[in-house]
Amino acid sequence: MASLGEFDFIGQFLKSQAAQGQPFFDSPLALGIGDDAALIPPLPAGEQFVVATDMLVEGRHYRADVDPASLGHKVLAVNLSDLAAMGARPVAFTLAAALRSIDQRWLRLFLTGLFDLARSTQCPLIGGDTVGVLSDAPQSFSVTVLGAVPQGKALLRSGARPGDELWVSGSLGDAAYAVSRWVADPKLDWPSPRLALGQRLQGLASAAIDISDGLSAEVRHLLEESGSHRSVAISATIDWQTLPLGPSLRLALQSQSISDDRARVFAATGGDEYELLFAAPVSARDKVGEIGASLGLPLTRIGSLAATPASPCGIFWRDDQGQPIPAELASECGQGGFDHFKS
Amino acid sequence: MASLGEFDFIGQFLKSQAAQGQPFFDSPLALGIGDDAALIPPLPAGEQFVVATDMLVEGRHYRADVDPASLGHKVLAVNLSDLAAMGARPVAFTLAAALRSIDQRWLRLFLTGLFDLARSTQCPLIGGDTVGVLSDAPQSFSVTVLGAVPQGKALLRSGARPGDELWVSGSLGDAAYAVSRWVADPKLDWPSPRLALGQRLQGLASAAIDISDGLSAEVRHLLEESGSHRSVAISATIDWQTLPLGPSLRLALQSQSISDDRARVFAATGGDEYELLFAAPVSARDKVGEIGASLGLPLTRIGSLAATPASPCGIFWRDDQGQPIPAELASECGQGGFDHFKS
Repeated sequence: MASLGEFDFIGQFLKSQAAQGQPFFDSPLALGIGDDAALIPPLPAGEQFVVATDMLVEGRHYRADVDPASLGHKVLAVNLSDLAAMGARPVAFTLAAALRSIDQRWLRLFLTGLFDLARSTQCPLIGGDTVGVLSDAPQSFSVTVLGAVPQGKALLRSGARPGDELWVSGSLGDAAYAVSRWVADPKLDWPSPRLALGQRLQGLASAAIDISDGLSAEVRHLLEESGSHRSVAISATIDWQTLPLGPSLRLALQSQSISDDRARVFAATGGDEYELLFAAPVSARDKVGEIGASLGLPLTRIGSLAATPASPCGIFWRDDQGQPIPAELASECGQGGFDHFKS
Repeated sequence: MASLGEFDFIGQFLKSQAAQGQPFFDSPLALGIGDDAALIPPLPAGEQFVVATDMLVEGRHYRADVDPASLGHKVLAVNLSDLAAMGARPVAFTLAAALRSIDQRWLRLFLTGLFDLARSTQCPLIGGDTVGVLSDAPQSFSVTVLGAVPQGKALLRSGARPGDELWVSGSLGDAAYAVSRWVADPKLDWPSPRLALGQRLQGLASAAIDISDGLSAEVRHLLEESGSHRSVAISATIDWQTLPLGPSLRLALQSQSISDDRARVFAATGGDEYELLFAAPVSARDKVGEIGASLGLPLTRIGSLAATPASPCGIFWRDDQGQPIPAELASECGQGGFDHFKS
């Protein structure tokens, strides 16, 4: 951690901003930036810590000309989204940054985006590392976030049961649609981690995962983890027409600049959404509806799970008549997800 | 965290290795790699968590032709060294890796070095992220380590008092001497985090810091933090002849390939040592000696602290007659430390 202090500008800026009005620091056992390590105050009785690490690399996850404030927001948001998927509340985070040079204006904007989200989610920066890299090397930002959840109550990928229904929060597809057109989009640049939803789903959802790699890929993760946990092959049937399209895709549909099928492929496979996909028993339907209403966040039931007599398990996409969607569309969606080394 | 699962090779390798024989996973509340986040079992009553983040970047902290096993060791070791400096024991760690391509042989060696140290320090890998970068981009590895320490007992940089004595563990200078000659050296490539020492110093040392940027720089950090904590300017007097030279430097001295002064400048300013620098009251002298003997680790008293009537505080290097060392040597040492952007 020593390196954070190496650059007076960053060190001082971070020190002053990180502590600002954060309940974390109310404890006499808390220590933030400036020593070899940070000290974390004990949690209230009955809670346990949750930890997630996600990295954004220039040219890989974002373009060099990205709005630095949105990048600062996003590098924390994608990590908070992992906490949301566990049903956890944020506690604090560390940041490791590889920077080409100290461009004070750029950095100030980046930190503004970062700290605005840190403040609003009560998740202060408590340590990290900064390293200078050569002028032709990509910048990168790696965040590790600590969260807290009641002991044994975390939402896992492995908890889904045959018979459960599948839900998604918010809307899907706008982030990937923006990437395909090389344009900015609030969904792509300023994702909202669904922290409140995740915490409300404790004890209600049987499984949850955040949609970073695309709905189809996340459904597959959930089927695999839940299936192997219960030693049963589980398949998902998803109602193609229920996929909640994002506002940019709906506009594009209205202006006929995209077909309905194309729009739904974006929703089914597009990454970078940071919505929650979760499974819940049929009996939870009303409660889920109430949670969505009270949060002002649309929650859409998109399908259901069933035990499949034989492996492999899979995803079955159905149209509004209950019939399989055309094979080439299904194959496109079945192959969703994003492998950094293949792209 | 999702990305760890993206590459089957890495994901499967990590999953199988990370859990191997680690007491962390004895708790039913523990969850490692494979979900959106890891779950950390609660600590024994009276302990609190400690967290540190340190990143190694190719071309900056190590050469591209580094022994991958030593690199895997080192990226965890430098983080464990931060825990040692807090007096903490390791609990678990996460890893964010930016990799050019999946060179299975290289990666297997890297992970062998990483997991050997993880196993021997009971600090399992519980999550992380892997990102593919372009073929001309540097690789980088960012670790966040969680440790535990009795509540309120962490060793801080800010606890030193005027009158305390300064100690260092092990020997100094070999890592920087190896870098200057572009050769391998156990100190540079396989640093030993001083975890046992740090824990034994709880309640005995008044302050501690690990030597990553060089003794002189770390002494300055300690003076600054302790001075500002106590609102008193504190200076250090260091006995130039007591600096414990590393075995490579001692060999070089014997063969007259380096002068005594040059060797001591390496010891006073060389980074990458990962020894502990600590302050302790005079009354602790015998106990410190006993700890060193029982650990089989030389602990050397190199100087002492005193309140200075006026700022700026500083480091005074003295020869074995108690006289200041030559001004140009002192100035060289006073300017020790390592700023990544200046080098």
